[in-house]
Amino acid sequence: MEPSAITEILDGRWAALRRTVREQLAAVEYSDTSGLSTDEHRALVFEQMHALAKTDGPRLGFDREYGGGGDIGGSVVAFEMLGFGDLSLMVKAGVQWGLFGGAVQLLGTRRHHERHLADIMDLTLPGCFAMTETGHGSDVQHLRTTATFDGGEFVIHTPHQSARKDYIGNAARDGRAAVVFAQLITDGRSRGVHAFLVPIRDTEGNPMPGVSIEDCGRKGGLNGVDNGRLTFDHVRVPRDNLLDHYGQVDEDGTYRSPIDSDNRRFFTMLGTLIRGRVSVAGSAGSAAKRALTIAVRYADTRRQFNRPDEAREVVLLDYQAHQRKLLPALATTYALHFAQEALTATLDELQSAADPDERRQRELESRAAGVKALSTWHTTATIQTCREACGGAGYLAENLLTGLKADTDVFTTFEGDNTVLLQLVAKGLLTNYRSHFEDLGTLATARFVAEQFVGMVAERLPSLGPGRDDADALYDRGWQLRAFEDREAHVLDGLARRLRRAASGDADPFEVFNSAQDHVLRAGRVHTERVVLQAFADAVEGCADPEVKHLLDRVCTLYALHTVNDDLAWFLAHGRLAAGRGKAVNGAVNALCAELRPHARTLVDAFAIPERFLDAAILREEPDRQDVQWRHDQANAAS
Amino acid sequence: MEPSAITEILDGRWAALRRTVREQLAAVEYSDTSGLSTDEHRALVFEQMHALAKTDGPRLGFDREYGGGGDIGGSVVAFEMLGFGDLSLMVKAGVQWGLFGGAVQLLGTRRHHERHLADIMDLTLPGCFAMTETGHGSDVQHLRTTATFDGGEFVIHTPHQSARKDYIGNAARDGRAAVVFAQLITDGRSRGVHAFLVPIRDTEGNPMPGVSIEDCGRKGGLNGVDNGRLTFDHVRVPRDNLLDHYGQVDEDGTYRSPIDSDNRRFFTMLGTLIRGRVSVAGSAGSAAKRALTIAVRYADTRRQFNRPDEAREVVLLDYQAHQRKLLPALATTYALHFAQEALTATLDELQSAADPDERRQRELESRAAGVKALSTWHTTATIQTCREACGGAGYLAENLLTGLKADTDVFTTFEGDNTVLLQLVAKGLLTNYRSHFEDLGTLATARFVAEQFVGMVAERLPSLGPGRDDADALYDRGWQLRAFEDREAHVLDGLARRLRRAASGDADPFEVFNSAQDHVLRAGRVHTERVVLQAFADAVEGCADPEVKHLLDRVCTLYALHTVNDDLAWFLAHGRLAAGRGKAVNGAVNALCAELRPHARTLVDAFAIPERFLDAAILREEPDRQDVQWRHDQANAAS
Repeated sequence: MEPSAITEILDGRWAALRRTVREQLAAVEYSDTSGLSTDEHRALVFEQMHALAKTDGPRLGFDREYGGGGDIGGSVVAFEMLGFGDLSLMVKAGVQWGLFGGAVQLLGTRRHHERHLADIMDLTLPGCFAMTETGHGSDVQHLRTTATFDGGEFVIHTPHQSARKDYIGNAARDGRAAVVFAQLITDGRSRGVHAFLVPIRDTEGNPMPGVSIEDCGRKGGLNGVDNGRLTFDHVRVPRDNLLDHYGQVDEDGTYRSPIDSDNRRFFTMLGTLIRGRVSVAGSAGSAAKRALTIAVRYADTRRQFNRPDEAREVVLLDYQAHQRKLLPALATTYALHFAQEALTATLDELQSAADPDERRQRELESRAAGVKALSTWHTTATIQTCREACGGAGYLAENLLTGLKADTDVFTTFEGDNTVLLQLVAKGLLTNYRSHFEDLGTLATARFVAEQFVGMVAERLPSLGPGRDDADALYDRGWQLRAFEDREAHVLDGLARRLRRAASGDADPFEVFNSAQDHVLRAGRVHTERVVLQAFADAVEGCADPEVKHLLDRVCTLYALHTVNDDLAWFLAHGRLAAGRGKAVNGAVNALCAELRPHARTLVDAFAIPERFLDAAILREEPDRQDVQWRHDQANAAS
Repeated sequence: MEPSAITEILDGRWAALRRTVREQLAAVEYSDTSGLSTDEHRALVFEQMHALAKTDGPRLGFDREYGGGGDIGGSVVAFEMLGFGDLSLMVKAGVQWGLFGGAVQLLGTRRHHERHLADIMDLTLPGCFAMTETGHGSDVQHLRTTATFDGGEFVIHTPHQSARKDYIGNAARDGRAAVVFAQLITDGRSRGVHAFLVPIRDTEGNPMPGVSIEDCGRKGGLNGVDNGRLTFDHVRVPRDNLLDHYGQVDEDGTYRSPIDSDNRRFFTMLGTLIRGRVSVAGSAGSAAKRALTIAVRYADTRRQFNRPDEAREVVLLDYQAHQRKLLPALATTYALHFAQEALTATLDELQSAADPDERRQRELESRAAGVKALSTWHTTATIQTCREACGGAGYLAENLLTGLKADTDVFTTFEGDNTVLLQLVAKGLLTNYRSHFEDLGTLATARFVAEQFVGMVAERLPSLGPGRDDADALYDRGWQLRAFEDREAHVLDGLARRLRRAASGDADPFEVFNSAQDHVLRAGRVHTERVVLQAFADAVEGCADPEVKHLLDRVCTLYALHTVNDDLAWFLAHGRLAAGRGKAVNGAVNALCAELRPHARTLVDAFAIPERFLDAAILREEPDRQDVQWRHDQANAAS
């Protein structure tokens, strides 16, 4: 099978765009950045940003009215493709056009769009997204920076050092403006977090009066991005600089908002900024694809240890242990790809709609959180595995894996800490509507949740007994889907019961939630795994080419059974699998790895990563080709 | 409790040495190396090597006769302590005094010792350990480099490019000599791999004639170590340069060895070189301790999210999820420490003995392999967890975790690839005596193994039923030890049966072993986990201070139950735990985390890491102290 037949399925709805961006990437000068100093790397990436600004990619997510492409899904897909290249460029582009530009677009109104969007798109105005503070990263609702309305202006102020804006991309070197998130105070009352456009450097590049800028210095990776710290000392900005889509302040200081609840307004604002999270998940997937392509190609030619009965050494990927390292990770990468594609389509639909359905918007936010968490953890683990699978060679910068590992590491904690995100998913599941969990953490919520869910046990999955007659059930997509749904329903139901029991006494509500935190995280995870399997199953189902469909079907089954195997204790403890079936699941994973092994190269080549990003020294020639030839010559000479 | 009371137990037999080396480390100038170029970092580390050469540490492992310290265990402990500092220095010291010096000492004879040991100890002769080739890293028995006896000399030759020596520490910049492992050929016959002392640079630093030296360039970490590649083009060295403890070549080319079997001789030689592996495990442990100290101290003061009923935010380590990230990892770090200490004591005893017991030597090699594999994987996972537990701050170089992560990454694949090592452990268990597994991989071995083991099922562990009466059994050390022993015996027995069944047909022997590879790896892992628990249990048992004993007892139980929880599917599927007990294990892990939480700071401070290596920016002041003060002031002002 030609890899391109699979590429077509992977490319999906945005196939033309994906091909275009890949071609652009393939044409760009790409060089090894591992030896660059921080300054050199930053300078290089800023140059590449200017080149990128001349393409259509950065404009995709903006309204056509201002010169944008009007293709929200496409903008996310473009970041996914950028994920094949230098991730510093992807992140810096994400800061400029996703976070900074996105905030101006989505939180601002017409006057901000008219004044700034063109400059943002063509990089005339490089900017920052200044949300996180040293002291508040996860709990951004309680940021300490203030924007006090005074004399017709806003006074932006950092009350103490741990309230400085921290880890802010574009801040240390290039940013001229920042969208600063701060507590809006007017009439002596706080209205919650709002966003303000604040100039941070003049045209000469010097900090504006009252703005102090520090450099975060060297990082574990992404050193082409200039992260910095911003401190504001009573910096005055015009009233117009409030990005006022969700809240306005009149000249006399009167506050008005279409959303009454401070809490609901805040989460609605955050919800609009979801593209960044979806983009991170997508580019994390691309990094995993790149690592797997390198590791699988290497394992497909590298040999070690003779077979007892053969003179030639065994190819690494013929070892079961090596298959178990790489192939389930490959299957999971496929699964997450299709989940990401479904997420992107929903995002595109809802953010293009005039009046999107609120329930679906909440569901989108929840899925974005879940997929981002699982995808980035998967990427971290997969690149680590790929590095180890290439041995000492994997540790050399020239083989690209250590750079990938270093650059993607922070993905698990930026754009939302994964642990916090999985809790968000669970809280969303427990309440279903945001309005109900505004005060989550209180007894009232626990009671609400309990009332809503207890007793709503999903149809029980028939246990797979130890008999042989149902040996094929594991391979059945229907069984797999039911198994994931049943697990999700049971975990959620158990959680709700547990909260109700605890809440019915006079327990401390914090302790109630805290002691169930592992259960909460598990609920977020199993829900997301179900969503991912469903997306993969749908993609297989919709596949027209029977040969491709058959192959992807097996990859999907490997994802499903590998996931069951990883959580086997749950399926056994809850009677979903009889004790004797435990081994059968593991055996099926082994069998699927063996079955897919001949297709491994095809499956990675289908990712269609431009070869320049796969130019690892260990792949330049088949590693043991010379040795095979040498032994062959020796044998001939001896005979 | 004072941390020092625990430090005393951790310091154990080599307490005085550990204290001395820690004091020396604390006095050394230490600077952040994250911003250094490769050249600068290499120069700095070589300078530090010269300073180190003036201390007693590097001499510890050498015979007193040549000016050494005659303390083999102490030499391993010194590397463990160096693991608190810049790991480039630890690895470079390991190459010089552990691998290179160790090979000259253990594979050479008196004339080599007299000629070189003093120069090696004081760094007059910087050297390399040139074993790994590009094409052969794990299967070093089949290295391609040849040393052909010709005209009274050895001709060292690299037959083709993938036979070059690769990843060789000290090669790219500083090494003047190398111990080169090559196939010894004399009288037209290969005698297997032997070690030769080969000059690679002259006193000016230029490569010797026939020696080509390449630089491996930038690596994922450890950039203070100059790894390089060595290629030999018919390089002639005197006959005396054969390190001839295990095999001699007379002037007329006659080969003699005290060990007849080429295979046995090779593994005996490798076995003597075990110190490096044990030292890597020890320093990996130190790196995990350092990461945990940073992450626990941070989590103990960092606050995020308000409790619903309190104005003050919650300290991170009060969250169950955060405890679950850090405290089982801390318990495992303690467990591995005591396993490492037991391993060091055995190594010291056997390598100091005139005629060590062969069975115990094999057991030592097996345990060293197993502990090295589990310890380095644990370190990689733990540092990753610590990085994530510190959020975005964890990604900044100034907070030390990314450097630790990058430097220790290669530990899982150098000094033996962990996957290969766990297989060695399993093979050792299956055969018990090396002489029996010379031809492992053949049907004969499978049959031998099967005959020896089948039926030897250990006493079955009584299943813990769902009743409440045995609720405390999980906390019982006796139950824990029996559970680990029983699991090991059962896994091994099952493996042996499986190999017998497969071997009794006319199955392909490679396929038989390959399809059982997951089972083989599991056998290696569960054996090592049992050895580790036993070592921890022994240490607790031998603890004189009742308060310390009680605390360590709980830490040991957390290690045991966390390990059971990670492998819960096995205990459930094999009827060792009734279905309903699964939750009890998880609940016990939660309860132990909560119980140990107040002691977390004490437990990390007990590692006694010199403060200069804990100088992370996030620890310089309690991260949220200012914020707490600010809120307090605000509340006062309002009232």
